[in-house]
Amino acid sequence: MSETAGIPSNRFRSIIERVEKLEEEIKELNEAKKEIFLEAKGDGLDVKILKEIIKLCKQDQDERDEHETLLDVYLRAIDAPTPAPSAQAA
Amino acid sequence: MSETAGIPSNRFRSIIERVEKLEEEIKELNEAKKEIFLEAKGDGLDVKILKEIIKLCKQDQDERDEHETLLDVYLRAIDAPTPAPSAQAA
Repeated sequence: MSETAGIPSNRFRSIIERVEKLEEEIKELNEAKKEIFLEAKGDGLDVKILKEIIKLCKQDQDERDEHETLLDVYLRAIDAPTPAPSAQAA
Repeated sequence: MSETAGIPSNRFRSIIERVEKLEEEIKELNEAKKEIFLEAKGDGLDVKILKEIIKLCKQDQDERDEHETLLDVYLRAIDAPTPAPSAQAA
């Protein structure tokens, strides 16, 4: 029996075929997911927001709170006026 | 029944649950794929090369030939000495 890097060729082929089968299944599931989003879009839902909701559903409440707090802190930091040089002098 | 953007909440929940179920299945398949690569690595195969082989198997012969030709042309372009100014004058 022929070999590839010391691996019998049927063993080598089996590895490749198993990966290919899994990739095919993943592709099909991704297409099914795309279909659901198209359907939701047809219902008038905003797909971008829907994806965000699904992501949020995966986080627990603590993670969500921390995320919210950090967003808030960073947004405030952008909005905050930089201290004027005179203010530092006063 | 409550609504979200004019969509009944059970319909909205069904969309989210279907996507979550698909994502769970995709995650499991990706883990199975990772397992196969670990197994292959255990057999002494180079996983990076194996992934390249799987990618090549998906292409047809024409695509592979074109890819090879372009790689060759570009590599030669890098190796080729830039024409000296005197050569242009001659």
